[in-house]
Amino acid sequence: MTYCVGLKLDRGLVFMSDTRTNSGVDNISKFRKMFSWSVPGERSIVLMTAGNLATTQAVVSLIDERIRARSASRPSVFELPTMFQVARDIGAMLKDIIRDSTPAGQNAETFTSTLILGGQIKGSEPRLFLIYPEGNFIEASDDTSFFQIGETKYGRPILVRAYERSMSFEDAVKLLLVSFDSTIKANLSVGLPIDLQVLDGTSASLHHGRRISAEDPYYQSISQGWSDALRGAFLSLPPYSF
Amino acid sequence: MTYCVGLKLDRGLVFMSDTRTNSGVDNISKFRKMFSWSVPGERSIVLMTAGNLATTQAVVSLIDERIRARSASRPSVFELPTMFQVARDIGAMLKDIIRDSTPAGQNAETFTSTLILGGQIKGSEPRLFLIYPEGNFIEASDDTSFFQIGETKYGRPILVRAYERSMSFEDAVKLLLVSFDSTIKANLSVGLPIDLQVLDGTSASLHHGRRISAEDPYYQSISQGWSDALRGAFLSLPPYSF
Repeated sequence: MTYCVGLKLDRGLVFMSDTRTNSGVDNISKFRKMFSWSVPGERSIVLMTAGNLATTQAVVSLIDERIRARSASRPSVFELPTMFQVARDIGAMLKDIIRDSTPAGQNAETFTSTLILGGQIKGSEPRLFLIYPEGNFIEASDDTSFFQIGETKYGRPILVRAYERSMSFEDAVKLLLVSFDSTIKANLSVGLPIDLQVLDGTSASLHHGRRISAEDPYYQSISQGWSDALRGAFLSLPPYSF
Repeated sequence: MTYCVGLKLDRGLVFMSDTRTNSGVDNISKFRKMFSWSVPGERSIVLMTAGNLATTQAVVSLIDERIRARSASRPSVFELPTMFQVARDIGAMLKDIIRDSTPAGQNAETFTSTLILGGQIKGSEPRLFLIYPEGNFIEASDDTSFFQIGETKYGRPILVRAYERSMSFEDAVKLLLVSFDSTIKANLSVGLPIDLQVLDGTSASLHHGRRISAEDPYYQSISQGWSDALRGAFLSLPPYSF
């Protein structure tokens, strides 16, 4: 399994993903699920992936290849004029790869994956998309300004309650770490280290790309502090009496 | 979907279940998922159900019928000498009903359900079981002293962190209401009202059976208070800086 979240803020976008993949509980590996492409100051694109690893790696390799072997007939994510067209292009790649992997007459479910795509092209706002295995996609709006993929349920209650579009990048990272910590504590298939990336909406550029490990002192303070804070919050509620 | 939790405490057992059933989001009904049978002072049995409603109703009706039409060859849950044998009997019923509902050659998945069974027979400790659709079951131990069925993920982080076997019945009800509130806020398929039941281990008897509605002032104070307390807990954590 996997856990990835993309948040849309007034200031830009924040991305976080775990790095655990598993095929059964006895076959656990570490793979990057966050990928980015950037022409500094012109455009920045971040992709996070959940689902079949062969499918998602093929999507990423295809994006890379198109960038290297530019052709007028098939523009890469660096040439497409809008983030909407980037989303449509990546959605089409995803759909094609899933279709090609699926033996005739069989169910495609094994080969599906879901993507979060965020990015900005200079002159436009940052945009955030959730791309389905069918190749279609939805965009974050004022009502729903974040997307989760993978093992989304454990970490959702705190996101629903504490997320605000006006929050700072720092507060957003803190919120995401709490959400990831809740998920990691409850589910073996999501694991450290965690990848982080920030897209600053004022410059269409990527910042603060880093990997947070289990030994990271801030992660440890959040992980321990959140247990205590949750228990404190629970104790602060009025007592029940029969 | 459904959400039911059974907690084993030093003092006895606490059960909570929601009442929403759905077949698609446009076909929502209210059905009781908690059932109890009791011979006051001698034995008390509580069953909670998740999954196919026809299957779980058939299990409950069969338990009722056996109690009414007692026969030496097929003892009811009131005659079986131990909770282990009650669990085995109900597990066998469940397996048979699922098998009988499934057309030959088809997948049984549509007809499955999962049960939480708790009870006490005078002279023994209270026991708590999780019964699988296959008819087999596991029992709560010192390491894992609660079971959840249905939509279990949203409400799990707070249970994992705040549950203690030594807690009072009142604290356990408060904890369960927080866990249910997190689930209800995040998932449409779990809904109020909530059913509550307490089994007091000193007397093998049931207490505090009641239904908690959306208008219940204590539930409202928990629901609102937990949002505030969670936000407060989040603010109390150390800030992140890049």
